[in-house]
Amino acid sequence: SASQDLDLKILQTVMEQLDANRIRENLRELSKEPHLATSPRDEALVQLLLQRWQDPESGLDSARTTEYEVLLSFPSGEQPNRVDVVNSTGAVLFSCRQSEENVTGEQGGPDVVPPYAAYAPPGTPQGPLVYANQGSEEDFKELQKEEVKLQDSIVLTRYGGVGRGAKAVNAAKYGVAGVLVYTDPKDINDGKSLPNETFPHSWCLPPSGVERGSYFEYFGDPLTPYLPATPSSFRLNSDNASGFPPIPIQPIGFEDAQVLLCNLGGKLAPANWQGGLGCDYNLGPGFRSNGIFPEDGQVNVSVHNRLELRNSSNVLGIIRGAVEPDRYVLYGNHRDSWVHGAVDPSTGTAVLLELSRVLGTLLKKGTWRPRRSIVFASWGAEEFGLIGSTEFTEEFFSKLQERAVAYINVDISVFANATLRVQGTPPIQSVVFSAAKQISAPGSSGLSIYDNWIRYYNRSSSVYGLVPSVGTLGAGSDYAPFIHFLGISSMDIAYTYDRSKTSARIYPTYHTAFDTFDYVDKFLDPGFSSHQAVARTAGSVLLRLSDSLFLPLNVSDYSETLRSFLQAAENLLLEQHNISFGPLVTAVEKFEGAATSFNQRIATLQEGTPDPLQVRMINDQLMLLERTFLNSQAFPEERYYSHVLWAPRTGSVATFPGLSNAYSQAENTGHEPAAWAEVQRQLSIVVAALEGAAATLRPVADL
Amino acid sequence: SASQDLDLKILQTVMEQLDANRIRENLRELSKEPHLATSPRDEALVQLLLQRWQDPESGLDSARTTEYEVLLSFPSGEQPNRVDVVNSTGAVLFSCRQSEENVTGEQGGPDVVPPYAAYAPPGTPQGPLVYANQGSEEDFKELQKEEVKLQDSIVLTRYGGVGRGAKAVNAAKYGVAGVLVYTDPKDINDGKSLPNETFPHSWCLPPSGVERGSYFEYFGDPLTPYLPATPSSFRLNSDNASGFPPIPIQPIGFEDAQVLLCNLGGKLAPANWQGGLGCDYNLGPGFRSNGIFPEDGQVNVSVHNRLELRNSSNVLGIIRGAVEPDRYVLYGNHRDSWVHGAVDPSTGTAVLLELSRVLGTLLKKGTWRPRRSIVFASWGAEEFGLIGSTEFTEEFFSKLQERAVAYINVDISVFANATLRVQGTPPIQSVVFSAAKQISAPGSSGLSIYDNWIRYYNRSSSVYGLVPSVGTLGAGSDYAPFIHFLGISSMDIAYTYDRSKTSARIYPTYHTAFDTFDYVDKFLDPGFSSHQAVARTAGSVLLRLSDSLFLPLNVSDYSETLRSFLQAAENLLLEQHNISFGPLVTAVEKFEGAATSFNQRIATLQEGTPDPLQVRMINDQLMLLERTFLNSQAFPEERYYSHVLWAPRTGSVATFPGLSNAYSQAENTGHEPAAWAEVQRQLSIVVAALEGAAATLRPVADL
Ligand SMILES: [Ca+2]
Ligand SMILES: [Ca+2]
Ligand SMILES: [Zn+2]
Ligand SMILES: [Zn+2]
Ligand SMILES: [Zn+2]
Ligand SMILES: [Zn+2]
Repeated sequence: SASQDLDLKILQTVMEQLDANRIRENLRELSKEPHLATSPRDEALVQLLLQRWQDPESGLDSARTTEYEVLLSFPSGEQPNRVDVVNSTGAVLFSCRQSEENVTGEQGGPDVVPPYAAYAPPGTPQGPLVYANQGSEEDFKELQKEEVKLQDSIVLTRYGGVGRGAKAVNAAKYGVAGVLVYTDPKDINDGKSLPNETFPHSWCLPPSGVERGSYFEYFGDPLTPYLPATPSSFRLNSDNASGFPPIPIQPIGFEDAQVLLCNLGGKLAPANWQGGLGCDYNLGPGFRSNGIFPEDGQVNVSVHNRLELRNSSNVLGIIRGAVEPDRYVLYGNHRDSWVHGAVDPSTGTAVLLELSRVLGTLLKKGTWRPRRSIVFASWGAEEFGLIGSTEFTEEFFSKLQERAVAYINVDISVFANATLRVQGTPPIQSVVFSAAKQISAPGSSGLSIYDNWIRYYNRSSSVYGLVPSVGTLGAGSDYAPFIHFLGISSMDIAYTYDRSKTSARIYPTYHTAFDTFDYVDKFLDPGFSSHQAVARTAGSVLLRLSDSLFLPLNVSDYSETLRSFLQAAENLLLEQHNISFGPLVTAVEKFEGAATSFNQRIATLQEGTPDPLQVRMINDQLMLLERTFLNSQAFPEERYYSHVLWAPRTGSVATFPGLSNAYSQAENTGHEPAAWAEVQRQLSIVVAALEGAAATLRPVADL
Repeated sequence: SASQDLDLKILQTVMEQLDANRIRENLRELSKEPHLATSPRDEALVQLLLQRWQDPESGLDSARTTEYEVLLSFPSGEQPNRVDVVNSTGAVLFSCRQSEENVTGEQGGPDVVPPYAAYAPPGTPQGPLVYANQGSEEDFKELQKEEVKLQDSIVLTRYGGVGRGAKAVNAAKYGVAGVLVYTDPKDINDGKSLPNETFPHSWCLPPSGVERGSYFEYFGDPLTPYLPATPSSFRLNSDNASGFPPIPIQPIGFEDAQVLLCNLGGKLAPANWQGGLGCDYNLGPGFRSNGIFPEDGQVNVSVHNRLELRNSSNVLGIIRGAVEPDRYVLYGNHRDSWVHGAVDPSTGTAVLLELSRVLGTLLKKGTWRPRRSIVFASWGAEEFGLIGSTEFTEEFFSKLQERAVAYINVDISVFANATLRVQGTPPIQSVVFSAAKQISAPGSSGLSIYDNWIRYYNRSSSVYGLVPSVGTLGAGSDYAPFIHFLGISSMDIAYTYDRSKTSARIYPTYHTAFDTFDYVDKFLDPGFSSHQAVARTAGSVLLRLSDSLFLPLNVSDYSETLRSFLQAAENLLLEQHNISFGPLVTAVEKFEGAATSFNQRIATLQEGTPDPLQVRMINDQLMLLERTFLNSQAFPEERYYSHVLWAPRTGSVATFPGLSNAYSQAENTGHEPAAWAEVQRQLSIVVAALEGAAATLRPVADL
């Protein structure tokens, strides 16, 4: 019936049926072999997903693939990438490993892609070595200040601080010829670096482990911005495509990095540039006089990566909504991995398969059909830059813009066993809290997931008092095109660390050949209770979004964000260059007022028996609020980014990104009038967006 | 009730109550005084509209104004614009009139703005005179071919052929210093030019009449593209604003043009450049030897226009929908005129007021309330470039994008008494036909408006056989931002000429001080029966859109357009540069198939008793189809234009505009690879739009 609402008994049934052991078995199957994007095993997993979602007893209403021809980057099969130390006659004195050590028998197979920097251009630069810390703009400024010659050098950088691609972009500005990247044990292993301290003896990264990754600066298929990469689509010539690293890069393990870095000459690097390799880190250029290499020894980096057009598939599985089939709640994760990808992404896919099995079973039994449609998605080629999900948003742009209620992303579902961690836009906070309050946390604490969460991540809300803190969405996984390009309320859900116990940047075997089933089974989540906790949380959020009569999105929770952005903007810019905050203050107040009244109208309707169209109108306002923050004119240079509140921001202060970036630009360009005009333009863009958002929440006949 | 549908009795009542004499009285009041945008009389009319729409017995639910601070252009009050012939010592030999002759006593008042070219920059260029026909690109190429020196010349051009602003843009490319524009009697008066043949003795333009107009190349407030021009909005510096004519221009009457043109020297102009001034038109440069001016006489143009920020108001009147208040049918016209504006725009506003009176009366009596909300709008500053309506679409962007069903524009409602004339997007054809079939045409023919219409404008449809032809929408009135920027199905409705009886470009007193009440009352529509016919047609369309259970938009009528665009594109481009039309053919076929099936589903639903949400879902698909053709990346250089099917097209073949323009560009640039790549990109943009449109029409649970 049109008044179909969330059935708490069904919800309870789903919670009970989500099975830790089935998740474990899913993970075993998913991570059995390496499944790099578009590899035969990746395609085999496409079939596995189709089979599961088409199962007569536990499948969905329908399942299909969508295929795209996308530009990926792979190391050459014939010419391995190399990093060598050579003397002045060119003789090779030392070579870095070309693959990780075969520690568990799973690192040696033919399907293990050697470590490389995807989209790094081929080239064989050679030069004296310089240590450049994390390769940030500040790091290169520091080297310049210290008069370290960067022109034609090879720089060694640590992962962290800035994005992968940014290291090469920053380096190239100083004439650097090539870049090496490694993971420092201080940043990933809490300092541990010996073989017997690392996997398979602990969760730590072995010395030969190398983080692979994409170095493409945008997301989506590089050749088809804003167009779905169908076979017949217009493609940029790859020479005209932008966002690739300007110079060759190659990642190496800390075992090899130690040989290079501990033999560097030059001045001692600053204290916060030092790491866990057991020696003083010097800046270079070149090697020290009493080390194992001649002082004029150079580093030669040989990169032979190749760009290739490949067919990548998404798998979509659909449950048709009983009442509002034209409203979609999406739930997705990527399928492709760098190697076996047990943690990334298979902990997420294992949960996805268990959740779709439980819901599919209820569906096939005739016990349940959701009010709205549910779309499960397994994205391809995420590791190369969120490609499958982005192409999907391009192909289905209109339908999603019109009809998508929310997007739930569960990529890595378990980083560690301590606590829930959620990132999302403010309106999803309330539904996540509702779900988390009714599920027990794994372990023996007896706490709910919510009460456990608040112990690890919390903030003081002016509205609610102490609550768990929900993080913001960057572009770290497939939610990016949904929130930034389409303005769909989105979230990412996982279980994660006790930050008092580890300072690891991320789980240590991330993007290496050591990210295997045993790694998860022995170290990350023995018993799979954290997996189950994530399955229940995400499953509960999904059911609440798909089944509740009124969409459980609390638009009023944007008010706190807007207030804090406003406050920060005022602090940053107050009385600078005659910028008046009056219109922005008014717009924030209008939003607050409209949101409060809107929630009151919902509460009043909920007391009575609202007619189906009244409910639909309210739900349309709830669904479309996030869309009102989009402005395709706001950041014309930032591909896909159009959400006025969540676009990338260079400054450290959490505020309106366009305003903040324009302000930084004005500061950096010596206060040019054009730069200050852009600050004013960005201010007007924010005001217009907030006015539009408030208008969308006001009674619909008050134009 | 949720199943509220169009009530044919109410429709009949509305048709009967629309009163010709009340329209006449409205027109008398509206055109009593000149009401240039933002003038005191324009503001007085704002109050008149508010009063009418707030009337307790015949008003709407609510009425309000929205105000914008916009950049307009006016002649100087102190320094009149001048056009003089001077001799080599600078002595003035002849001066053009600075105002129109006071023929009826209405041309002489202080509120009659002197003829000028709005947004033409100030300047006092002087040079030999050249005749440049209509000032098109081809015209200047012809002059160049004929070796007529254009550098530092003043060119005299006729209205017509290309837009106003284009004449100056084209001229400036050849170093022309200033431009004059006049209306040739051949183009406007069917050749008549004597005082006793023209108004007030006929509908023809008197010799001193001058067409005013905006020469701004874009639309909307020039200083606030994509932002509503609120007082606090960011504004471009007017030096940085684009779209203004590059050189001074001034319009003159044909009385003065005759003196200049009939004394020109040089070669005889081509046959199709000749006009109705009773002499041979020569090209110049300079005057002929046996004329009234010395051969080296020059023309001095003094333009003293000033840009001014002014407050312009829109008036909005709302009838709240009974069932779906969040669906808006908009009906609007501009209020501002150049002088008295009896025809333009007051014939439209007189109809608007009568229609809102009749509906308001039914509303206040409690007899009727529409299913959906109706929004009546009186736009400000249209004459300067659709400014009020564009700022409205910027301010209300999100709400309109989410909720607007259609926009009905009735600007000039009566050009002449022969036939209905409708421009619009294909889905509005069917509702206009339905309305026109049920209303009697004015006059004694006994025909319906439809049957009369088909006698004047018709085409052979592959689907329907012979039908009246509905024209396409350019940017000639306030519908432009609705269709091009927002993708809202739009139309413009008027009564117009028998083209076998006149070849006038437009009604002769257009934008002159002779466009007065008596002009309409005596010549254009004595008895106001054509006004009544337009009121009934537009009123019937409005009621059908606001009250029908299923929106009366026939999306399938896009198929014919797409087929013909496809055919034309194939003819234009076939086998050029390996362009494959396969994907486009497939996309058109998918659209056709989806639209046909969609219409079948509606027909099936209409046979039963569909539930309210089923109807709503179908209506959302109908409403949003037009939106799916928008692509903000398609034409980044064309301000506001984002509708992939209706953007401006330079070529003469009716086809996909982006494709056509890219093809022309490729042809003109000698087939550069980058230009052909743009052709391919535009092809992919069209394919993606059609695929998206088809997807929107498919069953909503088939993702
Ligand atoms: Ca793409
Ligand atoms: Ca504007
Ligand atoms: Zn991942
Ligand atoms: Zn990853
Ligand atoms: Zn008009
Ligand atoms: Zn006009």
